[in-house]
Amino acid sequence: MPSFQPPLRVLMGPGPSDVHPRVLAAMARPTIGHLDPAFVAMMEEVKQLLRSAFRTRNQLTIPVSGPGSVGMETCFVNLVEPGDTVIVCQNGAFGGRMKENVERCVATPVMVIDDWGKGIDLDKVRDAIAANPGAKALAFVHAETSTGVRAEAEQLCKMARDAGILTIVDAVTSLGGIAIEVDGWGIDAIYSGSQKCLSCTPGLSPVSFSERATEVIKGRNRKVQSWFMDLNLVMSYWQGSGGGAPRSYHHTAPINALYGLHESLTMLQEEGIENAWARHRKHHEALRDGLEAMGLKMLVAEHERLPQLNSVVIPDGVEDAPVRKALLANYNLEVGAGLGALAGKVWRIGLMGTSSTPNHVTLCLAALEATLAAAGAKIRTGKALAAANKVLFAG
Amino acid sequence: MPSFQPPLRVLMGPGPSDVHPRVLAAMARPTIGHLDPAFVAMMEEVKQLLRSAFRTRNQLTIPVSGPGSVGMETCFVNLVEPGDTVIVCQNGAFGGRMKENVERCVATPVMVIDDWGKGIDLDKVRDAIAANPGAKALAFVHAETSTGVRAEAEQLCKMARDAGILTIVDAVTSLGGIAIEVDGWGIDAIYSGSQKCLSCTPGLSPVSFSERATEVIKGRNRKVQSWFMDLNLVMSYWQGSGGGAPRSYHHTAPINALYGLHESLTMLQEEGIENAWARHRKHHEALRDGLEAMGLKMLVAEHERLPQLNSVVIPDGVEDAPVRKALLANYNLEVGAGLGALAGKVWRIGLMGTSSTPNHVTLCLAALEATLAAAGAKIRTGKALAAANKVLFAG
Repeated sequence: MPSFQPPLRVLMGPGPSDVHPRVLAAMARPTIGHLDPAFVAMMEEVKQLLRSAFRTRNQLTIPVSGPGSVGMETCFVNLVEPGDTVIVCQNGAFGGRMKENVERCVATPVMVIDDWGKGIDLDKVRDAIAANPGAKALAFVHAETSTGVRAEAEQLCKMARDAGILTIVDAVTSLGGIAIEVDGWGIDAIYSGSQKCLSCTPGLSPVSFSERATEVIKGRNRKVQSWFMDLNLVMSYWQGSGGGAPRSYHHTAPINALYGLHESLTMLQEEGIENAWARHRKHHEALRDGLEAMGLKMLVAEHERLPQLNSVVIPDGVEDAPVRKALLANYNLEVGAGLGALAGKVWRIGLMGTSSTPNHVTLCLAALEATLAAAGAKIRTGKALAAANKVLFAG
Repeated sequence: MPSFQPPLRVLMGPGPSDVHPRVLAAMARPTIGHLDPAFVAMMEEVKQLLRSAFRTRNQLTIPVSGPGSVGMETCFVNLVEPGDTVIVCQNGAFGGRMKENVERCVATPVMVIDDWGKGIDLDKVRDAIAANPGAKALAFVHAETSTGVRAEAEQLCKMARDAGILTIVDAVTSLGGIAIEVDGWGIDAIYSGSQKCLSCTPGLSPVSFSERATEVIKGRNRKVQSWFMDLNLVMSYWQGSGGGAPRSYHHTAPINALYGLHESLTMLQEEGIENAWARHRKHHEALRDGLEAMGLKMLVAEHERLPQLNSVVIPDGVEDAPVRKALLANYNLEVGAGLGALAGKVWRIGLMGTSSTPNHVTLCLAALEATLAAAGAKIRTGKALAAANKVLFAG
């Protein structure tokens, strides 16, 4: 069996995004041991870089050794105990996954449901908090990857904090792409993914826990149901057991993946995180103007739209799969299909991290216009690139 | 903050082992999407290569997206339900971790305890099986990484099978290093790690489940407590939902890590797995003869010793940490410390995968002899290299 040689794609789906050659090169550096002093020094740098990206001073800020779903589950199994009530906002696929997590902790989810493609209704959340005074936590998705909707995270956290309940925030697709202020907004538990706006390879999930959340974890009545995700154990590897005591072995960290994350976080720091947010914003506006010039419509209302994940309504009479297939076959361009309620109704175009550049916007518009025109779709041609160019370069 | 440049170590601890440049190069290939047709084709090859390494035709043979501890937990949370009884053999650190897993499934572990450094006593296991007719499974560690002891896996599986109970086997350190016959021995659930005798980077855990185990998972009374590890969901991504139905998204697979695993399994197939076992055996014998020529003693009796992980008794009057520190500082050579009951009493010298070569044996003996002599240890000098050379090259 020969070695696997992947095709050279342009990744503009819901993640993974294009991984920068610097990050790929970092992944290929020689493996060292997970207790090597040089590795331990790198772990400290990763924690520091993550604190900077999350805008927090939280001690317990680490990359979990697994994909974003493990970061999610780590937050739930450590904070939620059997019998607890958790208010869960669901307006897409990942809110539903939060519900599953609460249930598997033998706890009760109180659901606040909004339509796919709409934002979380703050009034409904306020009512749910008022109706459930003993709730342990409020959980919501900051950037719904299944729809492209942004949640009003600051206000949601304020409501929870005013009611004295914890917040659990899914920032898988938001970290590095739009503002997150873990300390400023008073977030208690947050998880992200490496392969979205950080443009590292998939497989790591940065998490951060407030002092308040850390105390809850340390003071649990019973052991965390997952041995692997038990932060009381994980902390002893990532932080040592305190008082200068040495780190103890918990599991073997994914060494080379962490080289990659270190490099991608270093690149984010070089750029400056506020510059990264502005870059994501600008390229979204260029894509949006181009798509609208073509006569296409965005699914999500302007004020709650994620710049890094653009849900575009598939025009009437156009079939979903053949267009995506042609984009992949002809241009090596990956865009995302709709999920769940939106399957066949939208394309999800990611402009995340290394995939948020003028060239990505331009190629995507050019390839989409040509492909839709060839498929006989009723779109306006010849306008999109100029519209995008104006946003990209006229400033 | 500058990019991280790891030192160039020689990895002869309990894992990770040295990663071959071919595997590192594979890790650095361009990232593609986890639902890309090219990636899906690679997933099929990985499954086929893993079946060949495990010597099984088990359909459910996949790499779990996490380190070996996640593979372990995946086996337990899928097969064990609250109220079950599991017989757990413990003669080292990882048997203890199995016990933790059983307990966190709200099940009862029946422990069969043997001393660290000794093999599992088959008579005690036979008694435990007879005394617990309703037990769900027998769990044991095939290659105890904390001690260097091999279990009599074939006999243990036969006992379990005769009693009609499932087997859960830890093969983290055995896969690729010593014989494993998943079908031949009738193993029901087995997990391994990528970073031991496969010499891939850490972060993936190959697992395989028999038809019988798969039926148990499909017929569970209640949902698996972990959403991420629920094989009923994971299967739909790795296998599709059957009948030609398309794969459904579960989590984002660690793409580049899987490139690395594909490459390391391809290298194993090129060598031939029986040749790999013979290579591990030969280099162990060379190391052992060299160490014994120096006057050092192996911890584990010959008949139950792992060739890929050599526990060497630290000679009287020699301090553990300074020797390991000198080996690392002077030779960039990592050997493992003792764990738990064996801390300060042994060194664990790994000869795994890419680290199982004549040069590793030779460097280790040379560096250890010089370092011990410089520390004033009472060893015989000038004999070890010739003893090793005889095994390595005289055949």
